[in-house]
Amino acid sequence: MAKTLGCLLGFICFLVPLTVADWNILNQKTQNGLKISLKNYCESWRMNVELHNIRDFQIVPEECTEYIGKYIRSTQYKVDSERAVDECIVYLGTSCSLKKDGKDGWIFDIDDTLLSAVPYYRIHSFGGERLNVTTLEEWISRGKAPALEHSLRLFNEIKSRGIQIILVSSRREFLRSATVHNLVNVGYHGWTSLVLRCPADELKSVGKYKADVRKQLINDGYHIWGILGDQYSSIEGLPSSTRAFKLPNPLYYVA
Amino acid sequence: MAKTLGCLLGFICFLVPLTVADWNILNQKTQNGLKISLKNYCESWRMNVELHNIRDFQIVPEECTEYIGKYIRSTQYKVDSERAVDECIVYLGTSCSLKKDGKDGWIFDIDDTLLSAVPYYRIHSFGGERLNVTTLEEWISRGKAPALEHSLRLFNEIKSRGIQIILVSSRREFLRSATVHNLVNVGYHGWTSLVLRCPADELKSVGKYKADVRKQLINDGYHIWGILGDQYSSIEGLPSSTRAFKLPNPLYYVA
Repeated sequence: MAKTLGCLLGFICFLVPLTVADWNILNQKTQNGLKISLKNYCESWRMNVELHNIRDFQIVPEECTEYIGKYIRSTQYKVDSERAVDECIVYLGTSCSLKKDGKDGWIFDIDDTLLSAVPYYRIHSFGGERLNVTTLEEWISRGKAPALEHSLRLFNEIKSRGIQIILVSSRREFLRSATVHNLVNVGYHGWTSLVLRCPADELKSVGKYKADVRKQLINDGYHIWGILGDQYSSIEGLPSSTRAFKLPNPLYYVA
Repeated sequence: MAKTLGCLLGFICFLVPLTVADWNILNQKTQNGLKISLKNYCESWRMNVELHNIRDFQIVPEECTEYIGKYIRSTQYKVDSERAVDECIVYLGTSCSLKKDGKDGWIFDIDDTLLSAVPYYRIHSFGGERLNVTTLEEWISRGKAPALEHSLRLFNEIKSRGIQIILVSSRREFLRSATVHNLVNVGYHGWTSLVLRCPADELKSVGKYKADVRKQLINDGYHIWGILGDQYSSIEGLPSSTRAFKLPNPLYYVA
């Protein structure tokens, strides 16, 4: 597979034809004269997505889809995710003085937090194609997304502490039945509430929709001890939870 | 250098004696039964520091100081930092409608944002030793910290746009003269204000001190378009800037 890359974001120019074998050994220069490989470039892209320096990207840069695909199938992605979950458990054990009034709450995102959408993105260039809502929702409606194992462990740990689990997803309301079946089939059960987007919510950003849900929960008397999500739109904005934990996800960006 | 590692944070147990050569090939299991290497472990530690899932760490885990030292001296650290700076420049060019009233502002952190403290940490186990304020301040007072090249480029870019540059550092007031000399010697000049911590500021967290400075700047009529910092305490909290950009820094944590 040989292709010629142009200038990455206008900063870094790869002037020679590329083959798959090249990506680890290319020596090109950045604007500042730094010699780097394509791996350096793609790793810095991924790191800056996770740092929230890169926002609103529509697709993974074409020249990095191979690198991102490799990462998302790697042990490293699993270890990175498991560590995020382990930090939630440390926090629960050391910093949460639960009120035990039935209003201790924890919010989970669904896609790529409880359920993995990697099987879908695997056949869609690992984020290298523009999002097609129709095919994604068709895939979701089949209810075959696997669990993220570490998240299931955290889900059960939180449930065992008597904390109410609230699932807040940008999935649309018509996917409720498929979502419930999928969650139950892979081992999730015992949540308190599953909040999906009704048509009115689609008029606002996902970040605003999720913040509004938190506002309602707090008005209902909940203390939200934490959120686990894979997007900044799941954890940022006001009102905030006491702590928020972010799982890595370089496949797509939800604003 | 052979040593025996115990259980990392109680989750991951390395049961065999370790040598430096082992770190890339070790096969151990996490709590979930995942086979990982020490490199996997340390890379996930670093990623979760940058995701702000791991907070308040006093030292880099002993078993990861070699890995962190390697990263911080690597091309990857430079590329990761340069990309953060490039994103600032993209943002300036596309999303900032400057008021041009002399009150457009940008905040920079100093240590490991404008000036590199890596030469200090290089002789202090790359974060593997508990912070010694005395030796750190003695090192700072010598005024020999090198510039972070990419940050200098951004500094000059921002200055050329007529944006006021405000430096907000957790350095203490008595280091003002050394700080000014150091900054000027490596190429930084033309900032509007240099805010350092007076004794009263030392009674609050760095995060609160920096938020209070932003509050004062906004009261003074500034619009703070952005912040570049290497610590979450430089960029989080209210009032916030329009955007914030975080440089990677796995060496230490400032709350």
